[in-house]
Amino acid sequence: MIGNPRLFSFIGSRQGRWRVNAQTTLKGTPLPNVERIDVRRGSVEHDHGSVPVENAWILQGVTSNERYVTSAEKSRLLPIQPNLGRSEATCAVMIPMSKSEQWWSLAQDERRNIFARSGHNELGMKALPAIARRLHHCRDLSTAERFDFVTWFEFAPEHQYTFDRLMESLRSTEEWEYVDQEVEIRMTST
Amino acid sequence: MIGNPRLFSFIGSRQGRWRVNAQTTLKGTPLPNVERIDVRRGSVEHDHGSVPVENAWILQGVTSNERYVTSAEKSRLLPIQPNLGRSEATCAVMIPMSKSEQWWSLAQDERRNIFARSGHNELGMKALPAIARRLHHCRDLSTAERFDFVTWFEFAPEHQYTFDRLMESLRSTEEWEYVDQEVEIRMTST
Repeated sequence: MIGNPRLFSFIGSRQGRWRVNAQTTLKGTPLPNVERIDVRRGSVEHDHGSVPVENAWILQGVTSNERYVTSAEKSRLLPIQPNLGRSEATCAVMIPMSKSEQWWSLAQDERRNIFARSGHNELGMKALPAIARRLHHCRDLSTAERFDFVTWFEFAPEHQYTFDRLMESLRSTEEWEYVDQEVEIRMTST
Repeated sequence: MIGNPRLFSFIGSRQGRWRVNAQTTLKGTPLPNVERIDVRRGSVEHDHGSVPVENAWILQGVTSNERYVTSAEKSRLLPIQPNLGRSEATCAVMIPMSKSEQWWSLAQDERRNIFARSGHNELGMKALPAIARRLHHCRDLSTAERFDFVTWFEFAPEHQYTFDRLMESLRSTEEWEYVDQEVEIRMTST
């Protein structure tokens, strides 16, 4: 079968473009430590030979439509949202996370209200255009994934502080009370 | 890899519990005609030997969290929503469909507003508890699926008219202007 064209694989092992500098478990079960991470389009089979098996894990996620952002918010976000892959953005952070069953059983308006009260969009806006971000959804893939989301951030070294402030603010919100798994992996490009 | 526990496969071939009585393409490309349909939990490989290959197709989808229903709507729906598998519900209808790229590029509030203006929830309420329904999402699976959704309905023969009215009403809404693929397969249990 043909893979979803919006699917990305995150491969943790001893190889890959991104060198891991720090791997922190904020909530839940840790991911095995890895030396490097590679991001590839499409699906990657563990037993395919193309992935080094030792200490390796593979997370997968698809980019998808917006779930909470309103039209007004989107029109402010779009003009200043940078793409991944900027040459100066040699720092990357990958944050695999899951939200609780309680979160997922909430109705759409309840989740949107928590998102809005938490100022998620405004906090993200403050970090633009410094911080590039791509959100991947894992929860509705064909496979049972360990995490609900993988968010991938890229920025230039001088914006490390902006990124740290962003995550510190998000983690103190009401929305984050529903996060029950969160791992943060900091990398640099080599 | 372990499959998503919310994944279902819909197998069209010459075998299966549900006998196809009518297969209609309302919009887009037809699905090959089949004699019978089987619904199974989990993923099914085409080349696995367990699926008759002749004229067979397999659609897949996952049940997931609500995307548009509000808390108030949900509290009215939940007490009267029947489950699939009622012994008297010998009629089933499967509706694979897709929405346009324009729909998916709309912000959440724009999609919700169209859903609300179309009275989607109220129309569905009118068909309860006669019509059981399970919605499966295909768009964010690992594989590239032909459809965005597969909806599966079950009802007793005397509620055929209620079902026909429901679909007639839905198809005349603003929301349905964004539907660009729709196939309807009517079945009876044997």
